[in-house]
Amino acid sequence: MPHFTIEYSANLDGRVDMSEICEVVRRAAVETGIFPLGGIRVRAIRCEHYAIADGNAKLSFLAMMLRLGEGRDLVTRKKAGEHVFKALSAHLDPVFAGSRFALSFDMQINDKETSWKRNNIHKALKAEAAHG
Amino acid sequence: MPHFTIEYSANLDGRVDMSEICEVVRRAAVETGIFPLGGIRVRAIRCEHYAIADGNAKLSFLAMMLRLGEGRDLVTRKKAGEHVFKALSAHLDPVFAGSRFALSFDMQINDKETSWKRNNIHKALKAEAAHG
Amino acid sequence: MPHFTIEYSANLDGRVDMSEICEVVRRAAVETGIFPLGGIRVRAIRCEHYAIADGNAKLSFLAMMLRLGEGRDLVTRKKAGEHVFKALSAHLDPVFAGSRFALSFDMQINDKETSWKRNNIHKALKAEAAHG
Repeated sequence: MPHFTIEYSANLDGRVDMSEICEVVRRAAVETGIFPLGGIRVRAIRCEHYAIADGNAKLSFLAMMLRLGEGRDLVTRKKAGEHVFKALSAHLDPVFAGSRFALSFDMQINDKETSWKRNNIHKALKAEAAHG
Repeated sequence: MPHFTIEYSANLDGRVDMSEICEVVRRAAVETGIFPLGGIRVRAIRCEHYAIADGNAKLSFLAMMLRLGEGRDLVTRKKAGEHVFKALSAHLDPVFAGSRFALSFDMQINDKETSWKRNNIHKALKAEAAHG
Repeated sequence: MPHFTIEYSANLDGRVDMSEICEVVRRAAVETGIFPLGGIRVRAIRCEHYAIADGNAKLSFLAMMLRLGEGRDLVTRKKAGEHVFKALSAHLDPVFAGSRFALSFDMQINDKETSWKRNNIHKALKAEAAHG
């Protein structure tokens, strides 16, 4: 945790650099200060087939979902979400300016009772920090 | 909102036109009358790798999830879901007739407290309607 | 139900056989004994674009989500989840040994009131068993 999953209409390719989008979200997530660095995972899934609003093929969307663990109160989550959304939205200003586009961001909390993980990134980051 | 995300086994390609499937779902969603037109986003994600039931590679699936905002009661959601599912299921009759296939549709409600959006499609649709 | 959806960073390709991963999860799900065979659907989605932890491109992740129906208590779900996670985690030991990698597994319960399905695999499996 946290997991940011982006789904986007394939017609954004060529107009948006999705690796850069992932990096924008990652940096914003780090800036919130509420997530352990080694747990941040952002990814984007290209949707080749889609149908939006009135079916006009020129419309496009980017929908992000954050799944995170329990233990952060609503105020903290809202503030962090706001920060990440603002960064993402600002980065996409050119898309809004040049086309009809729908951006969204929602958050889900995973039940800690049914959550399993194994992660050797945390340890590697600590080792790097110690030797850095 | 609403977001319809379809995941499907890659072996449906060639047998099912996924753009048409998205359009079938979009039209059915419009027909329910409970969603703002400019918020409807349907997409399909092809799953190259999968394992179903007893592992037989000829089996296939299509699983749809709807994520929508708060504010519609259960009766309204059930009726709308039923309508969309019937349209999708009827469209897939040939797949059921010709193969072993699992179709599913589930619904989740997004927490309005942690939901962000920016969408210039609504405004564009209104402008078109006014000039139409 | 149940639906296992795996999202993974594209840099795992070549190091991990994702069809085999799906099969490992499918077999472990069968072994739990709590799922009807004909309802098990495991799939993997390749994420071409991603950003993990400090942004190092050599990091990788595999995140699995299980969505299942209501009707199984927490103890049953925890035990089943533990079994599946152990099988998956053990299978990925070489990835942990050779790289910095984050594995996760979470579970969600779908609302039975807004759940629709149509599935001719159950019947086919019964017919095979009868003629087997």
